[in-house]
Amino acid sequence: MKFSPRVDELIKALQCLPGVGPRSAQRMTFQLLERDRVAGTRLGEALSRAMSDVGHCQDCRTFTEQTRCPICDNPRRAEKGQLCVVESPADLLAIESSGQYDGRYFVLMGHLSPLDGIGPDDIGLDVLDRMLAEGPWQEIILATNPTVEGDATAQYIADMARQREIRVSRIAHGVPVGGELGYVDGTTLALSFSGRRDI
Amino acid sequence: MKFSPRVDELIKALQCLPGVGPRSAQRMTFQLLERDRVAGTRLGEALSRAMSDVGHCQDCRTFTEQTRCPICDNPRRAEKGQLCVVESPADLLAIESSGQYDGRYFVLMGHLSPLDGIGPDDIGLDVLDRMLAEGPWQEIILATNPTVEGDATAQYIADMARQREIRVSRIAHGVPVGGELGYVDGTTLALSFSGRRDI
Ligand SMILES: [Zn+2]
Ligand SMILES: [Zn+2]
Repeated sequence: MKFSPRVDELIKALQCLPGVGPRSAQRMTFQLLERDRVAGTRLGEALSRAMSDVGHCQDCRTFTEQTRCPICDNPRRAEKGQLCVVESPADLLAIESSGQYDGRYFVLMGHLSPLDGIGPDDIGLDVLDRMLAEGPWQEIILATNPTVEGDATAQYIADMARQREIRVSRIAHGVPVGGELGYVDGTTLALSFSGRRDI
Repeated sequence: MKFSPRVDELIKALQCLPGVGPRSAQRMTFQLLERDRVAGTRLGEALSRAMSDVGHCQDCRTFTEQTRCPICDNPRRAEKGQLCVVESPADLLAIESSGQYDGRYFVLMGHLSPLDGIGPDDIGLDVLDRMLAEGPWQEIILATNPTVEGDATAQYIADMARQREIRVSRIAHGVPVGGELGYVDGTTLALSFSGRRDI
């Protein structure tokens, strides 16, 4: 025991958060106790509710409190037969915000990473394969991250889709619009060059 | 709404923590939901319990779930008639860890800061004055931080103690100017205690 049991318990529990060590956990605990118990109580309730109520959409696997998320539940989203595969709910949100896509999604909640023991079933590719079989799909759009793991995952899913004779595409990677060439990293520039098209 | 209501609620609630913005709140939420719901639930419970159960010791004002903290409740701590005044529970803990002091404490939970509207009563100096009156005290040791506010607070309390003809000292040697007491090692604190002078 360092402080009192309840205070020590909170300092320890806060360290489950990424990037929070003993020092910042102590600072957080003192700040909540001294200045904002209402917010602290609200956070406690939000945590309990989210941990118990939030599950995954039975179709696309994104986070939701319902059986199916609002996108999968919207029949207009299925009209074009497009399925966009992303790594995380944050990626889904970014694409939604762009307003450029109105099809359905499949959220992997990660990527293939054999070294970490993360195989196809761990990122729901068994579920995705059943979904591909149930179709009809016009196009599978692979929007995994342009990293070694994201590329390998995209390749794996592309093979799955081709076996079912479904068209597969990968979103283009390159220099962002408005970006300055001199500030773009080498990997992005390499992708930008290899993905060049005749004009 | 960005994600689902419960997820959005948690991302928002996490931003009450110092140093946590929208990006890290989202990262924390996803990590807990995907990898450690047990820890997330435990944190929720720890928060609720701490916010409702932790109060202040009726004597020294440090955090405790009891009416009086274990130090104030220990009659041997009162034997020498020494009272050490610190700014925070972390400072009390640092001094305890040094093993150089076995008297009682008074925790201000802050320091005088007229510009922020923090006056004597806000840091419990009314309670401290009653405590000084009730004595008997042999010595009041001022261990506030060596900052402008900490020094001003020490000066204010020194005047209070002198009016009651109680000896007052200020820890001096070893604590680096501008440093925070809670971050100083035990050896430095030991020097600081042995080198204290009457003021
Ligand atoms: Zn869905
Ligand atoms: Zn106490």
